[in-house]
Amino acid sequence: MAAAAVVSNGNHAAVQAPSTGRFASGYSEVQNSRLDHSLPLPSVLKSSLKVVDGPPSSAAGNPDEIAKLFPCLFGQPSVNMVPGDSAGELAPKALKIGVVLSGGQAPGGHNVISGIFDYLQDRCKGSTLYGFRGGPAGIMKGKYVVLTPEYIYPYRNQGGFDMICSGRDKIETPEQFKQAADTAVKLDLDGLVVIGGDDSNTNACLLAENFRSKNLKTRVIGCPKTIDGDLKSKEVPTSFGFDTACKIYAEMIGNVMVDARSTGKYYHFVRLMGRAASHITLECALQTHPNVTLIGEEVAAKKQTLKNVTDYIADVICKRAEFGYNYGVILIPEGLIDFIPEVQQLISELNEILAHDVVDEAGIWKKKLTPQSLELFDFLPQAIQEQLMLERDPHGNVQVAKIETEKMLIQMVETELEVRKQASAYKGQFKGQSHFFGYEGRCGLPSNFDATYCNALGYAAGVLLHSGKTGLISSVGNLAAPVAEWTVGGTALTSLMDVERRHGKFKPVIKKAMVELEGAPFKKYVSMREEWALKNLYINPGPIQFVGPTADKVNHTLLLELGYQI
Amino acid sequence: MAAAAVVSNGNHAAVQAPSTGRFASGYSEVQNSRLDHSLPLPSVLKSSLKVVDGPPSSAAGNPDEIAKLFPCLFGQPSVNMVPGDSAGELAPKALKIGVVLSGGQAPGGHNVISGIFDYLQDRCKGSTLYGFRGGPAGIMKGKYVVLTPEYIYPYRNQGGFDMICSGRDKIETPEQFKQAADTAVKLDLDGLVVIGGDDSNTNACLLAENFRSKNLKTRVIGCPKTIDGDLKSKEVPTSFGFDTACKIYAEMIGNVMVDARSTGKYYHFVRLMGRAASHITLECALQTHPNVTLIGEEVAAKKQTLKNVTDYIADVICKRAEFGYNYGVILIPEGLIDFIPEVQQLISELNEILAHDVVDEAGIWKKKLTPQSLELFDFLPQAIQEQLMLERDPHGNVQVAKIETEKMLIQMVETELEVRKQASAYKGQFKGQSHFFGYEGRCGLPSNFDATYCNALGYAAGVLLHSGKTGLISSVGNLAAPVAEWTVGGTALTSLMDVERRHGKFKPVIKKAMVELEGAPFKKYVSMREEWALKNLYINPGPIQFVGPTADKVNHTLLLELGYQI
Repeated sequence: MAAAAVVSNGNHAAVQAPSTGRFASGYSEVQNSRLDHSLPLPSVLKSSLKVVDGPPSSAAGNPDEIAKLFPCLFGQPSVNMVPGDSAGELAPKALKIGVVLSGGQAPGGHNVISGIFDYLQDRCKGSTLYGFRGGPAGIMKGKYVVLTPEYIYPYRNQGGFDMICSGRDKIETPEQFKQAADTAVKLDLDGLVVIGGDDSNTNACLLAENFRSKNLKTRVIGCPKTIDGDLKSKEVPTSFGFDTACKIYAEMIGNVMVDARSTGKYYHFVRLMGRAASHITLECALQTHPNVTLIGEEVAAKKQTLKNVTDYIADVICKRAEFGYNYGVILIPEGLIDFIPEVQQLISELNEILAHDVVDEAGIWKKKLTPQSLELFDFLPQAIQEQLMLERDPHGNVQVAKIETEKMLIQMVETELEVRKQASAYKGQFKGQSHFFGYEGRCGLPSNFDATYCNALGYAAGVLLHSGKTGLISSVGNLAAPVAEWTVGGTALTSLMDVERRHGKFKPVIKKAMVELEGAPFKKYVSMREEWALKNLYINPGPIQFVGPTADKVNHTLLLELGYQI
Repeated sequence: MAAAAVVSNGNHAAVQAPSTGRFASGYSEVQNSRLDHSLPLPSVLKSSLKVVDGPPSSAAGNPDEIAKLFPCLFGQPSVNMVPGDSAGELAPKALKIGVVLSGGQAPGGHNVISGIFDYLQDRCKGSTLYGFRGGPAGIMKGKYVVLTPEYIYPYRNQGGFDMICSGRDKIETPEQFKQAADTAVKLDLDGLVVIGGDDSNTNACLLAENFRSKNLKTRVIGCPKTIDGDLKSKEVPTSFGFDTACKIYAEMIGNVMVDARSTGKYYHFVRLMGRAASHITLECALQTHPNVTLIGEEVAAKKQTLKNVTDYIADVICKRAEFGYNYGVILIPEGLIDFIPEVQQLISELNEILAHDVVDEAGIWKKKLTPQSLELFDFLPQAIQEQLMLERDPHGNVQVAKIETEKMLIQMVETELEVRKQASAYKGQFKGQSHFFGYEGRCGLPSNFDATYCNALGYAAGVLLHSGKTGLISSVGNLAAPVAEWTVGGTALTSLMDVERRHGKFKPVIKKAMVELEGAPFKKYVSMREEWALKNLYINPGPIQFVGPTADKVNHTLLLELGYQI
């Protein structure tokens, strides 16, 4: 990358451009050192290539319904990129491309953008890249910035989404589709890259279908983003950001573990991001070896109750006390209580009661609960009872996400251990400490893996648009091999879709990839958890290293899913 | 360091010793890579040296009282190590030395121990190093382990205190001094190294005095430990662990800042460890440039009220809203409310009332509060009022440390902004997110600085004991220079002391080093804070790097205090 010119894009007011090509102030030394970190490309992207169509595709489920929802795109092939001779190469031409970040932050988003940009610079001289500001709303409102080398440079290999920011709006109504089309026409866009999670990629495909049905020339390509790791399939082995976020959380968990062992008197209950799936919690467990790990998918599959979960934790604590260990570390996925059927039942009953009935202080309202829900409600710590009654969203519903599950479990375990102490079944000391690791991991400096992976995703998105493809998600595979050997292609978004019935209508969805109880990562964890529970086999991953022998290691989930041992 | 043999010391059950000399399992790759990290020594420690006495010393305050409390040791000189010829060198002899970790964890403690050990191996062949287990109680109970190369190896450059663990007991009563002396005699100890904070080093000096008065041969040397950074003086420029802990917190703050800027809708209130002094908060501010930083010492000096603090934050938020920024990051020292005089007053009144009176639901008890305290109490959010009434320690006192200051401030700021909104003085949106960064930083892998500094402290402690010194604290200076040029010596602990009157008696104390409002770090912050408040000059320090060009950087506080610019 060339030396940077002066940058004044509003976000990085202090970033300066010294003659060395590095930013002297406004950035930390580590940030600075990342700016010129060079990113290897998969071999296939480095020379002449061709884009080869695969066989016609179907859908992940209900292909007939998907075919109705995507009449133009359904059945189109996924594609692979293979080495080609320079004769068959895509003819260089100047393109107008838009890019948008959609949804929550994930480390590496900036590198997807710079990857697209670099492709256009390398192979499509004279192109223009528009960054839509603030997510999909930026497309609808035509709010954008023209991305230049100087604009992009300070964000290379940096965390966050602040280059163009993100948003959670959706392009859903006919009016919104029209707004998006108007912007595409006005800017004469050849293509649009949507960087987002499952919902955003579903949206990207709807937009591709819509543009195609209107005979617009604008193609739409998706890129898989989410720290939660729940957007993946055979062709898309991982979503970007998962690697970095898990490594940041694991660094902190490792530190807390060493603290627990050194102090010898606290149980640390650590809640981790991941509302729908427990991949982050599982990956952090594989990296650090905690004493207890709760995996939502297992809790749901075994139809466990909150009492079951409490008892499991208490059992481990009691056994450890017999070994003289009155400390430990327990990992909890953010979405845990969403996986517990009885809690779902209680919450839906509460929503009904709170919407229609007066909640009297004497508690007569509780008689409206079913016996099972009443029993569960009374089992909950008082603070959680209050939270359930008081914290409601604008629709009057209980806000499950606001419940501090780690604090709830500490109180419930404390109560259970007190009972066991009275019965002389437990003689230890219990002190709980709660932690929530969330925002700290979404915007860290991307790991070498995420930085390289995102660059390849963006570069590949450039190829796909250049070759006139639409409705595909950029897919880079063989990720455990050296970067040179990574495979590159585009997967038909419709092939990842199923339908869900909402308000009497079929809606297309890319199903979230949950933790597979038959998958290698979960099985690895199960094979180890009894040993981890009682012995102290803690591992401290330490801070992410960007140089040196440990810098290029990939996360355990990905390696195990690709069939490697860890 | 030689290849490791099999280790089975109870804590690291999974650590194995492959033939490569590295640990194949049980450790992460980064942990492994740190084991053989080589530590440079100050030049003076690398060849023949002599220990040179300085002039007689006095005390930090009330020298007459200190002289009475330390009749044997008062007035003894501090010492410097200077190059010597081999003729004047200390005669090699086998020593029996004990070492103890006292108080909370700080990154680098293990390296102090390995530094002592390496000195004994290098210069005092045949020596024995005893590690007292679980803090000072280990001395009193004679609970120890003999430290061998194999035992120490897995802890080299690792975080935590789990090699021998720590404890908070004190050696205070005549009976306890006798127990300590009995252990010293039984083990025939030539010396004891106490690794701890201000209290523990005061204790070390009392022990040195006690042993001297009993004509025991056992010398006592202290080492300055605390992440809080409040044990320092002219001769002891910093306590170990501060550098690493601040870098870990700053990494997380930096990530949260990028998240705040990317999301654009949250104010993050981050509480940081440091109950007595605000050094950690100040250092993290210098590293990251938050919008608001509260420094307890300034709040106290200006006699600010909680309302003043709330208004200050609200003012910044209102001004930022005018620029369109409805997000930001606010740093709060753990001990903030201890610095607010009116809060102290309220708490002491509450302690009195709670001890003697019935607290009625109707609130008649509140009439016992002075008008100012009543006003403050009513100003507090309800959750904090309840916490003040309910959370009490075994003596019935309000537990100030349990108050989640960051949550309290969010609620108070929210209320204030609502008032301003009604008065049309604020048109923004406010959403607060709370964080507490504490345990995550105490046991991280030590930075290169802390690893090297601790090794030098330990090595120097070995020299001091070898040369027969007692009642000194190992002191390593000139820390901004290359390691080769670091100065090494021992400072008379009595010279750091003053007295405090407790229960009618004078007690010796090493005064905690507070943030100096006239000091360079605070002044630097003051010169920048208005710009930081309104502009977004966030810096993301990133994860600690152990190799590469950014690995050896020292923290800003230390550099500024040593007269350097940052």
